[in-house]
Amino acid sequence: MKQFISSQDAESFQQLIDQALAYKSNPLKDNSLGKGKRMGLLFLNPSMRTRLSTEIAAKNLGMDVIIFNVGQDGWAFEFEDEAIMSGTSVEHVKDAAPILGKYFDVLGIRTFPSLKNKEDDYSELYINQFIKYAGVPVVSLESATLHPLQSLTDLITIQETFKEKRKPKIVLTWAPHVKALPQCVANSFSQWITGWGGADFTIAHPEDYELDTRFTKGASITFNQEEALRNADFVYVKNWSTYSDYGKIYCNDPQWMLTQEKIKLTNHAKIMHCLPVRRNVELSDEILDSKSSIVTQQATNRVWAAQSVLSEILKGI
Amino acid sequence: MKQFISSQDAESFQQLIDQALAYKSNPLKDNSLGKGKRMGLLFLNPSMRTRLSTEIAAKNLGMDVIIFNVGQDGWAFEFEDEAIMSGTSVEHVKDAAPILGKYFDVLGIRTFPSLKNKEDDYSELYINQFIKYAGVPVVSLESATLHPLQSLTDLITIQETFKEKRKPKIVLTWAPHVKALPQCVANSFSQWITGWGGADFTIAHPEDYELDTRFTKGASITFNQEEALRNADFVYVKNWSTYSDYGKIYCNDPQWMLTQEKIKLTNHAKIMHCLPVRRNVELSDEILDSKSSIVTQQATNRVWAAQSVLSEILKGI
Amino acid sequence: MKQFISSQDAESFQQLIDQALAYKSNPLKDNSLGKGKRMGLLFLNPSMRTRLSTEIAAKNLGMDVIIFNVGQDGWAFEFEDEAIMSGTSVEHVKDAAPILGKYFDVLGIRTFPSLKNKEDDYSELYINQFIKYAGVPVVSLESATLHPLQSLTDLITIQETFKEKRKPKIVLTWAPHVKALPQCVANSFSQWITGWGGADFTIAHPEDYELDTRFTKGASITFNQEEALRNADFVYVKNWSTYSDYGKIYCNDPQWMLTQEKIKLTNHAKIMHCLPVRRNVELSDEILDSKSSIVTQQATNRVWAAQSVLSEILKGI
Repeated sequence: MKQFISSQDAESFQQLIDQALAYKSNPLKDNSLGKGKRMGLLFLNPSMRTRLSTEIAAKNLGMDVIIFNVGQDGWAFEFEDEAIMSGTSVEHVKDAAPILGKYFDVLGIRTFPSLKNKEDDYSELYINQFIKYAGVPVVSLESATLHPLQSLTDLITIQETFKEKRKPKIVLTWAPHVKALPQCVANSFSQWITGWGGADFTIAHPEDYELDTRFTKGASITFNQEEALRNADFVYVKNWSTYSDYGKIYCNDPQWMLTQEKIKLTNHAKIMHCLPVRRNVELSDEILDSKSSIVTQQATNRVWAAQSVLSEILKGI
Repeated sequence: MKQFISSQDAESFQQLIDQALAYKSNPLKDNSLGKGKRMGLLFLNPSMRTRLSTEIAAKNLGMDVIIFNVGQDGWAFEFEDEAIMSGTSVEHVKDAAPILGKYFDVLGIRTFPSLKNKEDDYSELYINQFIKYAGVPVVSLESATLHPLQSLTDLITIQETFKEKRKPKIVLTWAPHVKALPQCVANSFSQWITGWGGADFTIAHPEDYELDTRFTKGASITFNQEEALRNADFVYVKNWSTYSDYGKIYCNDPQWMLTQEKIKLTNHAKIMHCLPVRRNVELSDEILDSKSSIVTQQATNRVWAAQSVLSEILKGI
Repeated sequence: MKQFISSQDAESFQQLIDQALAYKSNPLKDNSLGKGKRMGLLFLNPSMRTRLSTEIAAKNLGMDVIIFNVGQDGWAFEFEDEAIMSGTSVEHVKDAAPILGKYFDVLGIRTFPSLKNKEDDYSELYINQFIKYAGVPVVSLESATLHPLQSLTDLITIQETFKEKRKPKIVLTWAPHVKALPQCVANSFSQWITGWGGADFTIAHPEDYELDTRFTKGASITFNQEEALRNADFVYVKNWSTYSDYGKIYCNDPQWMLTQEKIKLTNHAKIMHCLPVRRNVELSDEILDSKSSIVTQQATNRVWAAQSVLSEILKGI
């Protein structure tokens, strides 16, 4: 694997999933694969699970890991070509990335969307500039529009949990939130679930919260949450801001918060969330504290998803 | 040992002290005890000695260490049960702690008091929520009301220094400061010295600066600093804010600053402080720069205190 | 080597350079030299290349490395002797440095100038206080007035690139910038190039931007950039603020920005810069993106320069 930015970089979802589960039962089985290799983890915005799980995964493979908090340990990067850098950006990615590519064998990078300019965000300028100039494999630790390590984790967790022969019914439902959030997790989950093809997949959200159709092809889409929840085996709860009129909060209807009452419509669905979650805003305490919730299992699987991806990256170096 | 939050978690002070001194003379003697074990150090507020000494101690025992600065690398936690999280807290400890417990074998956590609500602070809500939800041993790197790694260090330093047969006279004296500070170090020192029982122990402070009697039982308490200092073998200098009318600065009388003149009252006392110290506010230069001061020895012993505690924690896993 | 603060700490430039190039071709050849030794990297201000390259260099030599961001992980230090610490400084270097010297075998420290008080900055109070009180070797990761690891890197890069028998012509040219910057890189480059003696060395800058003559002895100095550039083999581009009337921006004449047109005056000069660089303010895109630019090679060599210096430090412990 040469990079891991979207589901399209995965040759085989199933191989990545199987390998992740093999690492879960034996974390150190390939602990010399990354010997003498160094991974740089660059954070352009904060992170907890991604930061910790990726460092652990890389170390499980024998790599050395160095973390660099851009703009905190260092300074702000410029990403625009031909910029006249008389403002606040101190260093151009064209100058920084090639050096990072000399210092590290693999780069993990977390960028973020502006939520102001859709074209810019969806061009994935930041991470693509790193890829263009670094000269070493780049792994997305979440970018402006996708979060592939999260989605691989989600798929691993679903396969680990659902043991019936039939296809599970999976629902991604929008939830209220107090801030305008990226579409990354929703886009990415949709891209992986539709790409996998192993599920009956429905997305429920209020009007105006349509996602980019590049990622939702193959999904049923509805404004009716109750209808969507009926007979669901998995309910993925997640807020996102508007896509068409970009980055807004149009509706914040608390009726969209998932409750124990609504879950009765499902087939004893397992409840998923990428975390962090705003309790009693996105999801009620009663659900998160119940046996239905598999959010801790999801987060724990982040280590094995990252380890499976890094393993493929290392084999390709 | 299942946790290290207060002196009550120590089965035997003397065993911890002896073991610490054994590590001091041979730091790497147990460097495979923690092999394959991972320690997470979470900082909810800044730290220098605790951060560095605990990382070094854990590595001396062969552990891998990952540091996470909450609210800097990540975001603010919520600690209240049933909170409706529509404010600035991004993640509930109920969701974060179980995952940290999956990522790490041992957690070290530094929390802090509000100094606004005594009941909240003294309930130790923050660290207790971590303990409740993490499912792995938690080591306090200072909490809202106690600092046990510091106090163990202090006891080690006292035993290392005092070689006479009789009980030493130890005085904890309040000192002026420019900010309202926690009572942690004073509470904790008092808890450990009284619990140890090997000293004649006096606490001197201005009126209104009484400490919680849970920690001071067995100590002589006086408002007269000079009387307290008479014949002291050790003088521990420390500021704290008021306890009864909580978190205030009532008196900041510079007369309480320890000076060379006052030390003449003592039995050539060794001067202790947990650091950082405000020079010429809490303690004069002449004392800190004199042979009486053992503050560097204390801070150096932080490594061995932490290593002794982590050793017990590892044996209990 | 007992410390590395200025070119005067180097016994032999050539030995350091040769050793650096040996590490470049075999990074791990001395990877047990630093075994059991611990390096602390203290940052009093931000850094990218220095931070990453020094950590990599120390690890290549088998050392353990711990990074501490002063004032971010911890708090602000006081450096003035006899200070009454009732302000914002929380800990005096007299108290912190001896402890850091107990925790670490080698300390790397990045300080910075005030650019307000020339005498203070040029006394190198901050780093000298660390040296005075730490009791272990101190390596400058850039100080108030010098940046020796950068200059050693520059010299390595020049020797690696220039293979003719004659002395190269090296020009250090001032460039415009939007902020008042330290004189460190310019002072230090001048100190090393004149100390080396292997080059015909010219410094070009606008009036009022004279550097401290302690560092420029042996260099030709001119206000005429075009004249300086004529037949140059290497052009080092760098902004600095005024020295005599200290820390100011008098002229920010865009005519001083290096362009492709001006480079025609040179002998196909290689273009150097320490980075970060303000593109199209200090240097044009066309130059930075051309084959003339060796800025990435310079930055890559930071690892080998640091490794060569740390190797000497380790041999001296």
